[in-house]
Amino acid sequence: MANNVTAPRGMRDFLPPEKARRERALAVIRQTYSAHGFEEIETPVVEDYERLHSGLGGDNEKLSFSVLKRGLTADDMAAAHASGDAHDLADLGLRFDLTVPLARFYATNRADLPNVFRAIQIAPVWRAERPQKGRYRQFVQADIDIIGEPGPLAEVELITATSATLSALGLNGCTIRLNDRRILFGLLDYCGVAPERRESALITIDKLDKIGVSGVVAELSEFGPDSAAVLGGFLEKIEPHLAGGGVPLTTPDILSVLPDGIDPEAVASLETIANALTELPDGVQVRFDPTLVRGMGYYTGTIFEIAHPESGSSVGGGGRYDGMIGRFLGTDVPAAGFSIGFERIVDLLPENESVRGGIVLVHDAPTAGAVPGDGLTLQALARIKSQAVAAGERVRLERRTKNLTPILDRAAAAGFTHFAFVDAHATTFADLTRKPLT
Amino acid sequence: MANNVTAPRGMRDFLPPEKARRERALAVIRQTYSAHGFEEIETPVVEDYERLHSGLGGDNEKLSFSVLKRGLTADDMAAAHASGDAHDLADLGLRFDLTVPLARFYATNRADLPNVFRAIQIAPVWRAERPQKGRYRQFVQADIDIIGEPGPLAEVELITATSATLSALGLNGCTIRLNDRRILFGLLDYCGVAPERRESALITIDKLDKIGVSGVVAELSEFGPDSAAVLGGFLEKIEPHLAGGGVPLTTPDILSVLPDGIDPEAVASLETIANALTELPDGVQVRFDPTLVRGMGYYTGTIFEIAHPESGSSVGGGGRYDGMIGRFLGTDVPAAGFSIGFERIVDLLPENESVRGGIVLVHDAPTAGAVPGDGLTLQALARIKSQAVAAGERVRLERRTKNLTPILDRAAAAGFTHFAFVDAHATTFADLTRKPLT
Repeated sequence: MANNVTAPRGMRDFLPPEKARRERALAVIRQTYSAHGFEEIETPVVEDYERLHSGLGGDNEKLSFSVLKRGLTADDMAAAHASGDAHDLADLGLRFDLTVPLARFYATNRADLPNVFRAIQIAPVWRAERPQKGRYRQFVQADIDIIGEPGPLAEVELITATSATLSALGLNGCTIRLNDRRILFGLLDYCGVAPERRESALITIDKLDKIGVSGVVAELSEFGPDSAAVLGGFLEKIEPHLAGGGVPLTTPDILSVLPDGIDPEAVASLETIANALTELPDGVQVRFDPTLVRGMGYYTGTIFEIAHPESGSSVGGGGRYDGMIGRFLGTDVPAAGFSIGFERIVDLLPENESVRGGIVLVHDAPTAGAVPGDGLTLQALARIKSQAVAAGERVRLERRTKNLTPILDRAAAAGFTHFAFVDAHATTFADLTRKPLT
Repeated sequence: MANNVTAPRGMRDFLPPEKARRERALAVIRQTYSAHGFEEIETPVVEDYERLHSGLGGDNEKLSFSVLKRGLTADDMAAAHASGDAHDLADLGLRFDLTVPLARFYATNRADLPNVFRAIQIAPVWRAERPQKGRYRQFVQADIDIIGEPGPLAEVELITATSATLSALGLNGCTIRLNDRRILFGLLDYCGVAPERRESALITIDKLDKIGVSGVVAELSEFGPDSAAVLGGFLEKIEPHLAGGGVPLTTPDILSVLPDGIDPEAVASLETIANALTELPDGVQVRFDPTLVRGMGYYTGTIFEIAHPESGSSVGGGGRYDGMIGRFLGTDVPAAGFSIGFERIVDLLPENESVRGGIVLVHDAPTAGAVPGDGLTLQALARIKSQAVAAGERVRLERRTKNLTPILDRAAAAGFTHFAFVDAHATTFADLTRKPLT
């Protein structure tokens, strides 16, 4: 009985050291994004079932946890039994990302928000993925979004703020890869892929780093041998650039790798963004990667990802999604966002030294209420503890045992720096003899 | 379409001012509890369905949101259709409190926790209550618990830390009412209520402040007219005390209002606790209230509630629940906890002045990428913004419009204190003319 009491499958408990580490990282993220003019909001963890299954979430919709209707009736069950459709049973679902809830939030609260709204969302999301190392069914995302800014200033603010945040967390040396959906679509046109098959062709291109040029070309042959051959030629030409992180972000460099006929506005937009990213932290490089896809179908313009040398996969990404907010609002609103993979970031953080000090008061107050003879009273102990807190200490009480070593070691690991014995003669915190914890 | 886009029924969005207010309060709670030696943990928002419905949650179990099994089969649906039981459809549920998850957490992670474990949990819980003013289906609880300390030192630390937290939040003048389940059971014995009917009699006594002595006596008459009459006599005797907040917490005072035969250990324990609460913030009074019940059936000893003069109902409460952890662990472990009603607390907080300053940079960079003639470039704007952030400012960009007043008013309300125009001639943040926002 005692052995198989675990957290739900694919989900984690956080013990004090890990929780403290996470909270410290979250505080840095909040503080940096706030300094860059973003404001935090919060939405409920659940959204209406229809909203979560409206097609905006891509594959993640299939991974969502659904919440059973309260007061489920026999009719509901009969309907579900007949239809085989979970929607007859569920009216809510746990969010699988922070973008669908943000679009709903904006539609709900637009009248109370500024014309250009810069949002921070730091919150858990849930996906019923098959549990595996590094993949969890509950995990935290940290998103910033700018709603209402149509021009590249949005992308510049998003990328600057996120680079600054990663740097503030101690993660240096990131590479930012930029692309534009319009360039991807232009490439597919050039390869002769029909517009209605674009998204499926993009899924193939997105596998480039896993299956290589030959794999992509083989998969793409189902779109016609000519398409595959043309794309293959293009990929071979740019492959050397990608090995170096991407193509330098100047118009001549971009144009030198692209076929003719690519949307010149998209090219100009990329260069404008790159030129404005002048104040990135040291060592951050920005590159053009015409094969960068990003999974979500809602992106309409710029897309970007951040890679870190110590992480095999991207630590964050985002892009422009001008059409999406309009789905809930009825009028189009420009929007762009950047999402940090918080779990991946936390794993990369340097082992933090403990943040603050503190004192362990080792006492011999009785466990029961009665005080035998002249022993330490709870009054005295409680008073001394309060005095220590008032003196600015973090205070942990420990009852004296024969072997104090494991107790003091544990406190030292939790950042406590001193200890003192509190015996029957102690009356004030100031009188105690402080000893260092080593 | 645009009009009925709302958060799920009974749940709330938090816009930036309210979110900031909540985060400030949470930071104070975290900081104060941490200073008092408590350590924060986190559990997943869901727990296994069986665990949530094991009888420990009282009425809250009926209010829990259940999560539909993934990959629900036709057999599952047929079983649910036949049984009418939601459990055939659900394998998880959203937690309805933080105590059941804590008990599960402790059972799972005990080997990695200290012998006396002082936990902080600050997290949302969910209950499918009928939405009404001040009651939400998602709300935050802030709990501290001490697991492994059998004596009244646990209650003393819990009450001291929580009083200090409320005081640090600016809520002064609280009254703490103490009672002990053993005293309540003694009273019921004295009234002739059979042990197996205790919990249901306590539900009646718990309604004292709503239905008065006569109402309680009327309801209790189903337990026999003698029981009702005896209890009625007792309640009439102590009613004047309760109007003044309760009975003074000395053994003679406690014994003066109680019938003979009440557990002397429980009385001594209450007085020990009261005597040790010597360092409470100014104006906090501690009283004995023999009619205090607390709803949950798992309490075994001391119980307590905190009332605040500006709140009609209690702002927090807790008690000792020695039997509960053992339900998951297989061995008994002493435990006591204190839960703050965070939503109630936040409503009581004095309107905070905004926490920090900041500067609004009013610019006329173009919305599109191209820079017409000698206009402000995105490069220059992004560089100046980064310089301002590096100078320690919180920075918000606003595009210049004909009427700046609403934009600047909004920034002032968000705590920004200055603004500056950034035009085509600006090159560095230091060159800008800072003007106060009023």
